[in-house]
Amino acid sequence: MQNNEIIFRPIGIIHTPFKERKGMPIQPTGGEGIKATIEIFPEFAEGLKDLDGFSHLVLIFNFHLSREYKLLVKPFMEDNIRGVFATRAPRRPNQIGLSIVKLDNIKSNILHISNIDIMDGTPLLDIKPYIRKLDGVENERMGWLEKKVDKFRKTKSDDRFVEK
Amino acid sequence: MQNNEIIFRPIGIIHTPFKERKGMPIQPTGGEGIKATIEIFPEFAEGLKDLDGFSHLVLIFNFHLSREYKLLVKPFMEDNIRGVFATRAPRRPNQIGLSIVKLDNIKSNILHISNIDIMDGTPLLDIKPYIRKLDGVENERMGWLEKKVDKFRKTKSDDRFVEK
Repeated sequence: MQNNEIIFRPIGIIHTPFKERKGMPIQPTGGEGIKATIEIFPEFAEGLKDLDGFSHLVLIFNFHLSREYKLLVKPFMEDNIRGVFATRAPRRPNQIGLSIVKLDNIKSNILHISNIDIMDGTPLLDIKPYIRKLDGVENERMGWLEKKVDKFRKTKSDDRFVEK
Repeated sequence: MQNNEIIFRPIGIIHTPFKERKGMPIQPTGGEGIKATIEIFPEFAEGLKDLDGFSHLVLIFNFHLSREYKLLVKPFMEDNIRGVFATRAPRRPNQIGLSIVKLDNIKSNILHISNIDIMDGTPLLDIKPYIRKLDGVENERMGWLEKKVDKFRKTKSDDRFVEK
């Protein structure tokens, strides 16, 4: 398994006011109120259906400016060296970033979002709805899942996502 | 950008009791109490330093059984067709899964975890510490970040992770 390559392609690009890393907020809580847009490539836009019912999104993106990784890093706010997996630092073996942002609205293939800590031009890999009872946030809307989320605990998988 | 490939490699393998998809919990809340282990490949084990101070982890993994994607899916607990990005379904353009799990302990390069909704043999791409005030969970420990997390709001980035 160890050398197996897993190949992803961006589903869109995140456009933000942050053109350089210095001076950026280091987490979404520090980017409160800052607006940005996500351009989803047209061939994926159909997958955005129903997303506008959610107040918050989980964005999974590529730290595209980070090339070499380090297993030990000195994080922000910290004088000690820490294991990279105990931090959110971008210099990770797989350069995957995760942010929870507020969704303001969706117009066609453009998502307007707030509370951003992401560099301009960042390639987006995936969007998931942020679900309070799975992920912990409060004061949100959950679109089509609103009345179903309590059932997660007892609902088991069937084979609908198994390749035939 | 659109056709740029982003190549990742697994940092480890998740070993769980779930050998087939049917009958699995569909989210971690449904996998409560279920134990599993993560084998981190030895060359990445140094990056686990300090991770044992956190009660919960964010796992980012590859839905390795999912090949073709669908932009419209019929999720669990649902009779309607939804956009894939408004669901947690595995048949996504980039087959990236996200779970929040409880960390029981770490012994060398093996992590013992609880509350699992992940298939046996799943390739792990990244681990991040789960941080209450960023991600929303309650009742957790935050290791080295415990006393620092309130500073996220006002701390700005410097250039420490910029490639020189």
